[in-house]
Amino acid sequence: MANFYTDNADLQYYIDRGIEWEPLVRLVEDGFRREDGFQTTDEAVGFYRDVLEMLGRFVADEIAPVAAEIERETMTLKDGGVEFGPKLTELFTKIKALEMNGLSIPRELGGMNSPVLVYMICSEIMARADVSIMAHHSFHAGIAMAMLVYSMAEGTTEIDPATGEILSTRFQDAIAEIVAGNAWGSMDITEPDAGSDMGALRTKAEQDADGNWFVTGQKIFITSGHGKYHIVIARTEEVKGDDALSGLHGLSTFVVPAYEDLPDGTRNRWVTVERLEEKLGHHASATCAVNFDHAPAHLIGERGEGFKQMLLLMNNARIGVGFECIGICEAAIRTAEAYAEERRTFGKSIDQHEIIADYFDEMRTDVQGLRAMAMRAAMFEEMSYRAQTKLRRGSADDLEARRLEAQSKEYKRSSRRVTPLLKYLAAEKAVEMARRCVQIHGGSGYTTEYGAEKLLRDAMVMPIYEGTSQIQSLMAMKDTLGAITKNPQEFVRRIAQARWRSVSARDPHVRRLAKLQSTSLAAQQHLIRKTVGDKFRNVRSRPLGEWIDGMSQNWDPKRDFAFAMLHAESLTRILADEVICEILLEQAQAHPERMDVFERYIERAEPRTRYLLDVILTTGDRMIEKLHPERHPIEVAAE
Amino acid sequence: MANFYTDNADLQYYIDRGIEWEPLVRLVEDGFRREDGFQTTDEAVGFYRDVLEMLGRFVADEIAPVAAEIERETMTLKDGGVEFGPKLTELFTKIKALEMNGLSIPRELGGMNSPVLVYMICSEIMARADVSIMAHHSFHAGIAMAMLVYSMAEGTTEIDPATGEILSTRFQDAIAEIVAGNAWGSMDITEPDAGSDMGALRTKAEQDADGNWFVTGQKIFITSGHGKYHIVIARTEEVKGDDALSGLHGLSTFVVPAYEDLPDGTRNRWVTVERLEEKLGHHASATCAVNFDHAPAHLIGERGEGFKQMLLLMNNARIGVGFECIGICEAAIRTAEAYAEERRTFGKSIDQHEIIADYFDEMRTDVQGLRAMAMRAAMFEEMSYRAQTKLRRGSADDLEARRLEAQSKEYKRSSRRVTPLLKYLAAEKAVEMARRCVQIHGGSGYTTEYGAEKLLRDAMVMPIYEGTSQIQSLMAMKDTLGAITKNPQEFVRRIAQARWRSVSARDPHVRRLAKLQSTSLAAQQHLIRKTVGDKFRNVRSRPLGEWIDGMSQNWDPKRDFAFAMLHAESLTRILADEVICEILLEQAQAHPERMDVFERYIERAEPRTRYLLDVILTTGDRMIEKLHPERHPIEVAAE
Repeated sequence: MANFYTDNADLQYYIDRGIEWEPLVRLVEDGFRREDGFQTTDEAVGFYRDVLEMLGRFVADEIAPVAAEIERETMTLKDGGVEFGPKLTELFTKIKALEMNGLSIPRELGGMNSPVLVYMICSEIMARADVSIMAHHSFHAGIAMAMLVYSMAEGTTEIDPATGEILSTRFQDAIAEIVAGNAWGSMDITEPDAGSDMGALRTKAEQDADGNWFVTGQKIFITSGHGKYHIVIARTEEVKGDDALSGLHGLSTFVVPAYEDLPDGTRNRWVTVERLEEKLGHHASATCAVNFDHAPAHLIGERGEGFKQMLLLMNNARIGVGFECIGICEAAIRTAEAYAEERRTFGKSIDQHEIIADYFDEMRTDVQGLRAMAMRAAMFEEMSYRAQTKLRRGSADDLEARRLEAQSKEYKRSSRRVTPLLKYLAAEKAVEMARRCVQIHGGSGYTTEYGAEKLLRDAMVMPIYEGTSQIQSLMAMKDTLGAITKNPQEFVRRIAQARWRSVSARDPHVRRLAKLQSTSLAAQQHLIRKTVGDKFRNVRSRPLGEWIDGMSQNWDPKRDFAFAMLHAESLTRILADEVICEILLEQAQAHPERMDVFERYIERAEPRTRYLLDVILTTGDRMIEKLHPERHPIEVAAE
Repeated sequence: MANFYTDNADLQYYIDRGIEWEPLVRLVEDGFRREDGFQTTDEAVGFYRDVLEMLGRFVADEIAPVAAEIERETMTLKDGGVEFGPKLTELFTKIKALEMNGLSIPRELGGMNSPVLVYMICSEIMARADVSIMAHHSFHAGIAMAMLVYSMAEGTTEIDPATGEILSTRFQDAIAEIVAGNAWGSMDITEPDAGSDMGALRTKAEQDADGNWFVTGQKIFITSGHGKYHIVIARTEEVKGDDALSGLHGLSTFVVPAYEDLPDGTRNRWVTVERLEEKLGHHASATCAVNFDHAPAHLIGERGEGFKQMLLLMNNARIGVGFECIGICEAAIRTAEAYAEERRTFGKSIDQHEIIADYFDEMRTDVQGLRAMAMRAAMFEEMSYRAQTKLRRGSADDLEARRLEAQSKEYKRSSRRVTPLLKYLAAEKAVEMARRCVQIHGGSGYTTEYGAEKLLRDAMVMPIYEGTSQIQSLMAMKDTLGAITKNPQEFVRRIAQARWRSVSARDPHVRRLAKLQSTSLAAQQHLIRKTVGDKFRNVRSRPLGEWIDGMSQNWDPKRDFAFAMLHAESLTRILADEVICEILLEQAQAHPERMDVFERYIERAEPRTRYLLDVILTTGDRMIEKLHPERHPIEVAAE
């Protein structure tokens, strides 16, 4: 019988050996001190494995076979909400019966208390069958988890300090409704004139005399906008002049119920789905234009914290997309393999032709690299969150509390470093592999019969939603260069160390990795040199006394980072290759059977990173001159 | 008023200055010796310009605005043929009224006697509005031209030696019907089990006692398979054993009318459309599964010449796809530009953001490079054909005839060199640019509202039809390496010359180009070394006397070319960049205002070709060992 978990050796590697479960499970299970919880890490992991096996079978048997049919069903607007087709409705009834909506919700709130990491792995498995069914489903648990996270962060979740149990939480009823599979939720950010640029958001939230909040405005491209519980970012303060930051600071986060069912059986609705987007793919997920008509709203935390609170969930959402993309990649590889093994030309099956064999080798290697990065990112993010949760449980003494706080910050920093690289590369690879899947099918791939073109259509939104690839690469670039400017000595030390390791390390794999790290550092060095150089040009026409201020303050991202922005994608690809090679070598050092993955990955990463460095070193000046001609007079005047 | 010709400065450059019209027009106009023809090159080019301006306006006004609507129309099977939607039918009535179907058909046969090159440029313009409407339309004239070419080649076209005029041609009625816009045609090659691998074709042609031919079998993925005149490749001799070449040699070409209209108004049908493929895109073009039921057929040339005759048209068809792809690229760039100029984020329009500005710069540069290569390829192919035609007109003396024969061969050789590079790169770029167009639109690009996703869907067939990208790259690789093995001295000389020019040429642009050529030659050298090396390993275990034979004969493409096949795409990309840079520098030397295009192109081509060389030099051995483990024992035994 088909099973999307047990047929995937690379995925099982993580459950069986690759993930360092002990510290995570210890935090998730609160030190194994509850009677209703697991008593050992092994016991917990055994349960996760059972869940994945069960889900792997369910997805293979119940979702994959109907995905094509569901994608052709139509969904329609009805009474301000959305009505789905019969097959999709039937499938969600089955999914509800699995009782998996509360997978990562604490037991006290009716959930299974699994790590978010397990939830992420489930996303990959489900996305392999159909990414839009997965996305549709994930807005159950995802929004319930978000409401819990928000309540914990604002301090409205009451915890018994003696047992560490949650006694109550602000959105408890909503969470229960979602866990039971009786409600959905959505995250409402994008507006017609504000996508990547959140400072331009215009949906308003206003308070009445009693302090009650009401949201009014329109949101678009809202995945599962038909849901009952909307987490909405709305403007509570006006934008001051042209200052983009003031635009961001004036935002607040709300939970907005779309409707209320009255005792008389009627429904009171404040949030209406006005339009369903007609999309290239992703057809089992409703993408809605949503109208808020003076909708009663619950402010999360303090007013003005909207952007900050978005950041609280952002990594998780983006890591989630990383796992989704890996599911698409797996589907693309396996769909193409099944075809290529059967299709014969020139006397052999086409998977034996050199070009196609090389495609498969690269795709299999890439998906292993992506998965390694995704697992790491999810682990960082969750360890940070779990350390925070433990702090909030209040049982830690002062020393322990400081340790947990530091640990949480360190993990968050690591998560923030890896997340944009994962979101970027996984999304780009999902599109690339789906495209290759079509190509390997030849003419058949262009027809709707083989599922290849559906994969491409579904994949195409990955580099767009949850922050475009371009936004990811800008974040990665700014964080990387920002860290260097804050601690240039550390950067110089890293360069020296990598160079030293690349010639003197005893292990040839370490030398190889160090060379690749040196390539990455050289790219960073060039970008920082250009960035600081540009800034330097702008300050040196001013009196010497102003230089230090000029260099350390008043960064104008539009001007100073221009060259680095131009090469942000190249840098991001280098950084992603570097992180993946680092993780894969660590794995190989712990589990020698993984050395093959490291070697396959780095073999392709080496010329690729050298190329991207070459691009950064040799191109871009012409474009910058064209885009920023105003910088030239300054340079000339100063010289 | 919108005009897809006059709004395109790069395209107009070719008409006004870039194309060396004189020798081509002289051949097309048969030395200006006809009274009904043009009397000078200028006069002729003026006419071509008028045609392009007229078409550019028509396409912008009449096709572009209805393309989205037409793509949503359904076509249905009816009486063994295909019935199109009302908008498409209406459009083709308008196109018919333009009387452009005979654009490149000789005047004697009712056409306008324009160069095929002008026809190709029309294809680009039309494809910019909708590539499937263009493809649908092109099967009028394309098949009429093919029938004339075949008739000329087999000697069934009667020409007046005094005037050079065509007196009659074998398929004159069919050509007239097509030129009048009253019939369509198609080229039927692919079968369920034979796509790239033509040796596997199984559709049969058999002769009755009177020598009449009849075709029986099924063809699939036939563009415009609803047409009346099918050019069909069918098997006339059985395949002998496993020999792929015997499979190719047993093929013959036929013209097969799908039906005959009887005087009583009924229709006698032998060729039936059995299925319309449901495709990802390309919706205005019918892709048919076609059934041949003992259909009366007209053999072209000799039996067994099917593959050879396919080759006769192949370059033209592939060059045509190159122009189509350029149309898609133009549409992608302009659609994205229109959006990016309007869409504002972070205080400026998104075309001013570095990443997006760089995308546009690269796309605009790439499309100029592609167009340069396409014009050159079309010119080569047409000059070869026109020289042949002049020969067949019979007015040349012996010396002139030998000169024309040599000229025709030389041009054909050049065309064969450039065509797979063009088909490969243009198709890959069409997909890449359409994808970028979606991405630049962000969430809007994923909806069906903006036309971006339609471009991607339409583009996705480009790397598949008329020979996949993989087949193109294998052809380019084999021709390139084959030429080297035939004349190694010449290859060594080219390496020395390029190296010399790269350091000693006075013009820095020539030095720059020579460096890029050296990179290309280094890649070729490595591949030939590996190829001959592999062969060498296989012969050196045999007695010395057999070596020369072993080296020069019995090439086993499956084994000897394995390493080169693995890297065929990398080589193809290098060769394409090299050819484009060569042409662009030539243009710049003739027209200094084009230097900017050369510099923009080579700036990106330099690191790219260095990278591809790096990939060829440093990767691939592992894959080859995995695919061909049998080669290892030989190596070990010999050493």
